[in-house]
Amino acid sequence: MSRYWSDIVHRLVPYVPGEQPALARPVKLNTNENPYPPSPHVVDAIRRELGDDGEALRRYPDPTARRLREAVAAHHGIRADQVFVGNGSDEVLAHTFQALLKHDLPILFPDITYSFYPTYARLYDVRYTTVPLDDAFAIDIDDYAQPNGGVLFPNPNAPTGHALPLAEIERLLARNTESVVVIDEAYVDFGAESAVALINRYPNLLVVHTTSKSRSLAGMRVGFAFGHADLIDALNRVKDSFNSYPLDRLAQVAATAAYEDGAWLRTMRERVIASRARLTAALAALGFDVVPSAANFVFARHPGHDAAALAARLREQEIFVRYFNAPRVNQHLRITVGTDAECDTLVDALSAIVGGKRG
Amino acid sequence: MSRYWSDIVHRLVPYVPGEQPALARPVKLNTNENPYPPSPHVVDAIRRELGDDGEALRRYPDPTARRLREAVAAHHGIRADQVFVGNGSDEVLAHTFQALLKHDLPILFPDITYSFYPTYARLYDVRYTTVPLDDAFAIDIDDYAQPNGGVLFPNPNAPTGHALPLAEIERLLARNTESVVVIDEAYVDFGAESAVALINRYPNLLVVHTTSKSRSLAGMRVGFAFGHADLIDALNRVKDSFNSYPLDRLAQVAATAAYEDGAWLRTMRERVIASRARLTAALAALGFDVVPSAANFVFARHPGHDAAALAARLREQEIFVRYFNAPRVNQHLRITVGTDAECDTLVDALSAIVGGKRG
Repeated sequence: MSRYWSDIVHRLVPYVPGEQPALARPVKLNTNENPYPPSPHVVDAIRRELGDDGEALRRYPDPTARRLREAVAAHHGIRADQVFVGNGSDEVLAHTFQALLKHDLPILFPDITYSFYPTYARLYDVRYTTVPLDDAFAIDIDDYAQPNGGVLFPNPNAPTGHALPLAEIERLLARNTESVVVIDEAYVDFGAESAVALINRYPNLLVVHTTSKSRSLAGMRVGFAFGHADLIDALNRVKDSFNSYPLDRLAQVAATAAYEDGAWLRTMRERVIASRARLTAALAALGFDVVPSAANFVFARHPGHDAAALAARLREQEIFVRYFNAPRVNQHLRITVGTDAECDTLVDALSAIVGGKRG
Repeated sequence: MSRYWSDIVHRLVPYVPGEQPALARPVKLNTNENPYPPSPHVVDAIRRELGDDGEALRRYPDPTARRLREAVAAHHGIRADQVFVGNGSDEVLAHTFQALLKHDLPILFPDITYSFYPTYARLYDVRYTTVPLDDAFAIDIDDYAQPNGGVLFPNPNAPTGHALPLAEIERLLARNTESVVVIDEAYVDFGAESAVALINRYPNLLVVHTTSKSRSLAGMRVGFAFGHADLIDALNRVKDSFNSYPLDRLAQVAATAAYEDGAWLRTMRERVIASRARLTAALAALGFDVVPSAANFVFARHPGHDAAALAARLREQEIFVRYFNAPRVNQHLRITVGTDAECDTLVDALSAIVGGKRG
């Protein structure tokens, strides 16, 4: 606290990301990282850009990330001017709040969702109303039929992993034409239907993606928004008033290579999906209630054990899961789908705590 | 333009960075890049982080960039909690506008300065008053003795290259105690005195640095702010409400290695300073007026030739310099100090245009 701070700084409630433990080999199932490395083409592309002496690094990167946008547009069958690139999807979402969600009416998002949304809203003084999920932690589109300055939710939702069918999203879009609808698809590759295919039909649809999850590039910070060129233009105007060069040279070539290797994506995704089924069954066998997940994590509670206590016990064994001390979810754990070996370590540890048997 | 845009988007005047020409070997003297590659330790550090298969890239980077802050703090003899890290100094400046410069009174900056400042002011709705440089393009500290919400200027100034002695900055700080003073030292390593040494004595001083110029890492996007821990706290609160992970893994290790190789910095800086003297003399011999520069660029005008026309003629020969179509400076060119060979190419081309002789 300081008299030199702007008013806004006093009002902020900064987001707290999952812990990045400084341990040699933690079982790290707390920030939804992919357990597998990125495509080998990513490593090759970075090495090529680096060259022998890093000469390329002395020059500014392409401020428009043209090649990357073209690769991603080709992947999705859209145009490069329908692609916005940012320093991770968190930055993309931040610009979206400022450029497209700040209006007189409050925006709507679920009461249980990505906990960064209210933080952005405070940063940009955007009014919001939270809309409760139903008792099964599902989004009911009918609940969003109210005047609003924008609608925003992840699909699959976080931290629940619950996915909405594309038909439901289209039903929302058909009705909600006066404000922007943002579908945050950070986890879409693990089992939900993408709304990118709809951007040519709905000029108010913005779809947000990331390379951090399915493409194993959390360490490189590359995210996207897809939408009508007018929406992308708004994001670029904000971006070019904030930082001309948000993506460094190595991040640009890394993400481009990742999008060009579709086979790697499919293989790793299938592995994660298979491990998710295995983990879900093992947790259920221990007596956990597990929300059906279309993401690379599961959301689970044990009726006989306090979630915070479980997370703390796991942490003592250097097993990290995510616990949210918030209404309705403070008896749940969000557990990233790791390798089968990591999941086994977790399940063994939980088994010892809850006294159940392995399924 | 779209009805879905927030009001602010309509009012923005995005910054336009210098051109990044897609040519094989342009003589690129338009964006103040270093003509020499980064330290070999930078390349080694990136290769090490990348490893054989890029496994580290699947994990989020350290959101606090602790090792990098410690390396930079050690370099400057300050504490790590006096260091803020951002995705290039442009991002650092953006956060500074929102966190520390948005008050009831207008902020003050020179009429001729980094042209991103008014863009940031519009983005965050920060009022500002420009203070004219004197006729020699120098900042007169006495002109800033007026009520303000903050004072901001580069030292050396851009695009003039003119440097203020540290004693003048301290004179400003001694008087201007009610608002934050931001000294943007992007070019300080090329010949000005840094104000970092003053941060322990003035709790309202914020000094901004970048790795893009003297450390040859424009392509990696790493910038800093140094100041009292309360000022750094404000910046972190905004950063953690915007994007938890602004620096990717490779950028963090690259910048850390760059700071640990002080010898490389000194050698390359001396080369640039020697080339600047040589270029300045050659331009003077052609009849140019050259502002004495403490940066890695020179600001020059020819009394007999229109600056825009000169820039266009050079561009035809794939020689890029920066031209600003703005009051007081629209007869000047800002020319980055390249290698001696690049400077010779430029001087030869100018010589052919202005009809003078080489000095």
